[in-house]
Amino acid sequence: MNTSEGFNVKNQRNLTMLVDFYELTMMNGYLKNNVQDVVAYFDMYFRRIPDGGGYCIMAGVEQAIDFLKGLNFTKDDIDYLREKDMFNEEFLKYLEDFKFECDVWAIPEGTPVFPGEPLVTVRGPVMQAQFIETMLLLTINHQTLIATKAARICEAAKGRPVMEFGSRRAQGYDGAIYGARAAIIGGCNSTACTIAEEMFKVPAIGTMAHSWIQLFKNEYEAFKAWANTYPDNTVLLVDTYNVLKSGVPNAIKIFNEVLKPLGKRPKAVRIDSGDITYLTKEVRKMLDDAGYEDVKITVSNSLDEFIINSVIENGAPIDSFGVGERLITAKSEPVFGGVYKLVGIEEDGKIVPKIKISENIEKITNPSFKRTYRIFDKYTDKAIADLICTHDEVIDINEPLEIFHPTFTWKRKRIKDYYIKDLMVQVFEKGKQVYTSPSVMEIREYARVERNKLWSEVLRIQNPHAYYVDLSKNLWELKENLLNEYSSKYGN
Amino acid sequence: MNTSEGFNVKNQRNLTMLVDFYELTMMNGYLKNNVQDVVAYFDMYFRRIPDGGGYCIMAGVEQAIDFLKGLNFTKDDIDYLREKDMFNEEFLKYLEDFKFECDVWAIPEGTPVFPGEPLVTVRGPVMQAQFIETMLLLTINHQTLIATKAARICEAAKGRPVMEFGSRRAQGYDGAIYGARAAIIGGCNSTACTIAEEMFKVPAIGTMAHSWIQLFKNEYEAFKAWANTYPDNTVLLVDTYNVLKSGVPNAIKIFNEVLKPLGKRPKAVRIDSGDITYLTKEVRKMLDDAGYEDVKITVSNSLDEFIINSVIENGAPIDSFGVGERLITAKSEPVFGGVYKLVGIEEDGKIVPKIKISENIEKITNPSFKRTYRIFDKYTDKAIADLICTHDEVIDINEPLEIFHPTFTWKRKRIKDYYIKDLMVQVFEKGKQVYTSPSVMEIREYARVERNKLWSEVLRIQNPHAYYVDLSKNLWELKENLLNEYSSKYGN
Repeated sequence: MNTSEGFNVKNQRNLTMLVDFYELTMMNGYLKNNVQDVVAYFDMYFRRIPDGGGYCIMAGVEQAIDFLKGLNFTKDDIDYLREKDMFNEEFLKYLEDFKFECDVWAIPEGTPVFPGEPLVTVRGPVMQAQFIETMLLLTINHQTLIATKAARICEAAKGRPVMEFGSRRAQGYDGAIYGARAAIIGGCNSTACTIAEEMFKVPAIGTMAHSWIQLFKNEYEAFKAWANTYPDNTVLLVDTYNVLKSGVPNAIKIFNEVLKPLGKRPKAVRIDSGDITYLTKEVRKMLDDAGYEDVKITVSNSLDEFIINSVIENGAPIDSFGVGERLITAKSEPVFGGVYKLVGIEEDGKIVPKIKISENIEKITNPSFKRTYRIFDKYTDKAIADLICTHDEVIDINEPLEIFHPTFTWKRKRIKDYYIKDLMVQVFEKGKQVYTSPSVMEIREYARVERNKLWSEVLRIQNPHAYYVDLSKNLWELKENLLNEYSSKYGN
Repeated sequence: MNTSEGFNVKNQRNLTMLVDFYELTMMNGYLKNNVQDVVAYFDMYFRRIPDGGGYCIMAGVEQAIDFLKGLNFTKDDIDYLREKDMFNEEFLKYLEDFKFECDVWAIPEGTPVFPGEPLVTVRGPVMQAQFIETMLLLTINHQTLIATKAARICEAAKGRPVMEFGSRRAQGYDGAIYGARAAIIGGCNSTACTIAEEMFKVPAIGTMAHSWIQLFKNEYEAFKAWANTYPDNTVLLVDTYNVLKSGVPNAIKIFNEVLKPLGKRPKAVRIDSGDITYLTKEVRKMLDDAGYEDVKITVSNSLDEFIINSVIENGAPIDSFGVGERLITAKSEPVFGGVYKLVGIEEDGKIVPKIKISENIEKITNPSFKRTYRIFDKYTDKAIADLICTHDEVIDINEPLEIFHPTFTWKRKRIKDYYIKDLMVQVFEKGKQVYTSPSVMEIREYARVERNKLWSEVLRIQNPHAYYVDLSKNLWELKENLLNEYSSKYGN
């Protein structure tokens, strides 16, 4: 069956029911208690940068939009819920007629983001704003995790191309597909994931596995068949038997015997095992001595930012990297801990800020409806700090701006000659999509440009400088008041 | 739009193009070099058990079957590949007419499995056996990873129910959906992932989040609304403000004022933060003193097998656990390193074994078409060892069986009074499906039974005894001969 619906099937799965069950029990309860129309404000934000890094790269907004605009409970869904024998018919009817009506703001994909600031803000009937929690978090958490990891790996590669090829070790099909998407946003040059190219127009590439070599009588014959098949793009995998004694000598023979007579230059050799620093140095010499100074060396084998950093520092002459499982699962820290918290409700048209207290200080939320500005130095275009304000605050950029540390408030900084940027864009207005995502390759370029606006001290992959994320005086006071109110109730 | 196609959409996405690009370049090359019909044997196996555990739990076979039987290149797929300008029309035609023709054997889901033994064996035209590598690995790697992690967590919980609720931190939508499936197979009692219940008939459960509490005027009012909504199933989250000073006192008030007059007993309280050992001991006392000895205490908050083990050892009176990000991502070791290797080809109807050499000894493959037997003690029903044989070997269970360590061959063991079980079942015969998966709950029960056949020393979550996986004398000699052949070519 060849249909032309391939793309639809790939893009438009109905994931409405991918929801934590408690969202449904709560919604049923909101309706039962007649609070379903209370207008609520929820923020998605995160508390810590993975791997002790200096920044994260926002990703996943396009898929979050796809989900929100496709929200739809099927008859099967309703029947299934009815069988659970715990929901009111009124609630099931509500789901059957579900029409998304929230306002949603998000930081565009590719933007460097920092702990504590809202990545997504949702305003709408609590029924709906509550419902979308699971998928919003799942979508943004996953892609931001992988985009951030990719950015670290590309930082370590110092401009050398990085190819994502972790599909086989991804956590599920979307782990591979959207992981590849996020890896490109984070800076990877290409992916081995074919369907990702089809869906997102990102470059997919690939050559041969060891099985190609093993299938033929010997390595020489396997290389010969390959060079004859792909004379314009010959990349040979040289580590099936022995890199220095067999792989590279056979490769050079093929370059001379097959490609040279055709007037073609080979592209690269690939090494996928062993001591890559030692091996690449030896291989480089062998290739150079044979007159193949222009043939690249590409390397894979359980790489990540730390290993890449180390082999480059040790002078390994590597031209590009293939990175698999440690990127596609963000192995060193595979969880991006974004949360989604109620920060306010409306009563009589006014915002009543809400705060979630916790024994862990860093788990206390920033209350109310907010807006975050990134403050740039007018002369260097470098980002100085992010300032989280209440939604109605206005910053007069003609006046100096005083920012201060939210805990150690005596740490103050007076900023002149700056300009500001509102980090969020509105993506839904009363349920209607009002923002269209750029292409993935455009997002990748945007991420590159925005990352360059961070000081190199923040970009460092180890022990980076902590970027400032401060609260406006207004917001800080609001939070202090709520904390004092709590303390007078439960304090010791 | 309410349609009845929900289940189809959920189950039957066309993932044919979720393939590493090099599978396609190799296939195109096989065809070009006229080796496309060579019959090849590939094994999927793994080398190491994650987290230093004693066993893994096989999972993902049903989804692998779904993929193989749904293989289908759409017109869009072919057009996209044509545009890459590197494939022959003959190859594109081959894809257009693709008809799966391989034999596939697999170890059934829920079976405890060990390093080195084939989990899946594929026999068929190299074109096809090569193509399915990416999806086979992706599917089995992911679900086996999560099922194994879940088994460890349930082992630590010592019979107390474990609920999976990690969707929001999963790596992509399938990470959540099939992760929930695998978690149930590994032993979890329920999941918060609603769509998983709809798709797999596994129990989905859930109650309330902190936002429910925050939405109401105060905790007391929030609890009251909840108890009135769900009087038969009242579980209250008691840590929004202060567990001991507010949450539990308010909960007890509600139990007395709302549920008692209705003649209902509350089910549980849930704690999601703080020092859970201390808090649960205090909460238990408060509940008992108020006459609620039967009310359970359920706990969540970044749990895994190590923390669960520790809180139980410290006497925390916890009745059930909710486990999120550390289960759904297998955080402590988020990669299951299954590989797919060519182990033989047919020439003139005879199997020519193939071996992949590596500088890393543990990466050397076991050659040829094989079969694995689990050997059980006739009296205890406990598993003694797995024995990997060539496919045509026969074990006479009336004779004692001598097994030996494949490296330290003087370590020998003579087994009497045993019976054997062929670990694999055939799932495809010449491309036709010949095996139907049991339900997920049946697989879960099978996993429980089979796990009980392992000695407790193997089941231990820390420093378990290494289960024996040996090679038959026949297979061992075959491998030795191939290694010696290699050594005489490349050895120092």
